[in-house]
Amino acid sequence: MTDFISVEKVYGILDAAITPISRKERLPLRDALGCVLAESLYATNDVPAFNNSAMDGFAFPGSSLPAHGLARLPVEGVSYAGVPYCGEYSPRTAMRVMTGAAVPEGADTVIPFEHVRETTDDAGQSWIEFPHDEVKPGANLRLKGEEMKAGSIVMPAGLVLTPEWIGMAASLGHAELLVRRIRVAVFSTGDELAAPGTPGPLDTGRIYNANSPLIAALAQSWGAQVEDLGILPDNPEAIRSAFLDLGSRVDFIVTSGGVGEGEHDYTSKVFAELGGDLSHHHISQRPGKPFSFGRLGEAGPWFIALPGNPVAAAVSAKLYLHRAVRLAAGALSDEIGGKVVPARALSRVKGRTGRTDIVRGHLEPQGEVLTFTPAGSQGSAMLSTLAGMNAAAVLPEDTASAEAGSFVECLLL
Amino acid sequence: MTDFISVEKVYGILDAAITPISRKERLPLRDALGCVLAESLYATNDVPAFNNSAMDGFAFPGSSLPAHGLARLPVEGVSYAGVPYCGEYSPRTAMRVMTGAAVPEGADTVIPFEHVRETTDDAGQSWIEFPHDEVKPGANLRLKGEEMKAGSIVMPAGLVLTPEWIGMAASLGHAELLVRRIRVAVFSTGDELAAPGTPGPLDTGRIYNANSPLIAALAQSWGAQVEDLGILPDNPEAIRSAFLDLGSRVDFIVTSGGVGEGEHDYTSKVFAELGGDLSHHHISQRPGKPFSFGRLGEAGPWFIALPGNPVAAAVSAKLYLHRAVRLAAGALSDEIGGKVVPARALSRVKGRTGRTDIVRGHLEPQGEVLTFTPAGSQGSAMLSTLAGMNAAAVLPEDTASAEAGSFVECLLL
Repeated sequence: MTDFISVEKVYGILDAAITPISRKERLPLRDALGCVLAESLYATNDVPAFNNSAMDGFAFPGSSLPAHGLARLPVEGVSYAGVPYCGEYSPRTAMRVMTGAAVPEGADTVIPFEHVRETTDDAGQSWIEFPHDEVKPGANLRLKGEEMKAGSIVMPAGLVLTPEWIGMAASLGHAELLVRRIRVAVFSTGDELAAPGTPGPLDTGRIYNANSPLIAALAQSWGAQVEDLGILPDNPEAIRSAFLDLGSRVDFIVTSGGVGEGEHDYTSKVFAELGGDLSHHHISQRPGKPFSFGRLGEAGPWFIALPGNPVAAAVSAKLYLHRAVRLAAGALSDEIGGKVVPARALSRVKGRTGRTDIVRGHLEPQGEVLTFTPAGSQGSAMLSTLAGMNAAAVLPEDTASAEAGSFVECLLL
Repeated sequence: MTDFISVEKVYGILDAAITPISRKERLPLRDALGCVLAESLYATNDVPAFNNSAMDGFAFPGSSLPAHGLARLPVEGVSYAGVPYCGEYSPRTAMRVMTGAAVPEGADTVIPFEHVRETTDDAGQSWIEFPHDEVKPGANLRLKGEEMKAGSIVMPAGLVLTPEWIGMAASLGHAELLVRRIRVAVFSTGDELAAPGTPGPLDTGRIYNANSPLIAALAQSWGAQVEDLGILPDNPEAIRSAFLDLGSRVDFIVTSGGVGEGEHDYTSKVFAELGGDLSHHHISQRPGKPFSFGRLGEAGPWFIALPGNPVAAAVSAKLYLHRAVRLAAGALSDEIGGKVVPARALSRVKGRTGRTDIVRGHLEPQGEVLTFTPAGSQGSAMLSTLAGMNAAAVLPEDTASAEAGSFVECLLL
């Protein structure tokens, strides 16, 4: 019999076993979305690189004007975004500036077009007038280096590349990024499985393969390159040839079901024959008890077997496969693990001491707190209680049920 | 001068103007990730389709056995997942069943392998023994139809397809899904812009184009098919030919900067010449004041001009472009709009009545509540205060600053 181990113990096993892969790729910005940055990016110059205007308006030396009364300044020249004014800037004049345009030394304030009265005198000279207190000295000016100084680290290696970080990398001048992109192969085993698309109704005893599309879509949403092999027949030859084929091509081989104490478990046997080192665990967790983890040779792909029940497979994928993929990609430690928020249980959340209960349900803001309502049914085959929910309460091992009104930690789904 | 309008007013404009596109595509499951389902999916049969085992173990008629003492049952046959037992099931016998295998009529309980003692008698007959109270009648059995009944709606049209819904669709037998996938073209204008990848340092007055990669990556993360045209020169010919080229190919044309009251605004002029109907708004919001919206002809692409500052562009994209894309895809109303959670401000969150302030910062669980710490600098060009943060407090128009200790609504980033 296998001993039960805690959720934290599984984290420890993964953290100890998985080191960042050596393969790095240089990808165009958008292909890098969701991948992990493999080199730190520095500011090559101050950002902004020059004092510039935050508005379409007129730049002038606001701090050297009196604080009250009416200002009247001649307009000398114009600075466009990308086409700065080339002449000398004379103090006590105004310069027409567009948003993003360079503001010359000496001018320190910008007043928007719509806050001034503009006139032209008989000599054709343009003037602006506005009350001194219409705008504060220093307003609407973005200072050179105010966002970052040349040479400072802007994006440390290990960041997960969100759209915002993609934008930041572009602003630093990068069109391509060096990343670790994890390759994941997924398959299901089981003679009871039919491929989605097989015309129904299926014979009694057969079900559609939901797990490999589900796990593949999860891994894809984490930025991995995913290959879904679909259903492998429950026989040693098919499993052996899949392992041999994938061995040199992917970083993770992920399956669900078919590993453990059932009579038809060929996966473990084949894995051992190929020199793989596979250990089976029972996690004191519900759903998601069975979990097998190993590696095919010293530098081959890691192998993870998730539970066969779709909900258990999805929950374990979110807890463990996600962590494994991030570790292999060299992610920073605070990029590992899901978002957890506290919420008040609106009804009893059923759990048991001695195991971690992961209870699907619905999170909703109510006044100053979030509330959590557990889904009515928690059967581990019930995908409907996962897909329709936005959170899962996590009751740790030392906690029995959480009563209505008490606070529970919820993982955002 | 343009009037200021509220955030809600902008929502109203989008909701009134944008109807679901007529184009629907049938995509393989994983390509459909992030798209909006365009037809409801029904259960074609009960799920599960048959009573089946939740464990590897032995099925037996638990409710007709006494509640105490030792049970001793002969093992008659075996039911595998996919290969059900073909013979007749006799009451008061046990059947070896694998997880997912059909459990015959008459048996209503499954006891896991590890909870029984199995012996073989002299005649070669296998027997199992276990205390009656080892397992509750009905345990470890998944009942036919307990998840859903044949004919019921499982996935309504309008769902945004998450990995979990992809898994659910697969479990219903679908290998392809009919979806609305939105096509978005993005470009930036401005002579000050250099394409990322241009060797630096840039001349004074020039900056890298961060906005189109940022908006493209955001739209991609929402399941859209995105074309990033990069930088268009600030001249009417380039903009006209882009509009003409894109007119029949995409659902949205999105730009940032270059539209409004600046002198170099060719976008609006060209748009009008091409028969487009474009209205300019100032939103009483910070950051993200300027916003232009229109449509190129009666059935052409919608056009959205976001602010030129990268943070303002990203915030407005999340508030308005996201909504627009979801509306055009026919998403259900509760799939529109970001996730909002209440949090306690750890320091003052600066705002002003009369406008919606969107203050970037960091959300962190602390005991029973979430806490929010605003980022030090809120300049609208500071991408670093967006990319590094995980939330934005939203102070509505009727709210001035929120003091430390008060509750604020936060949008998860």
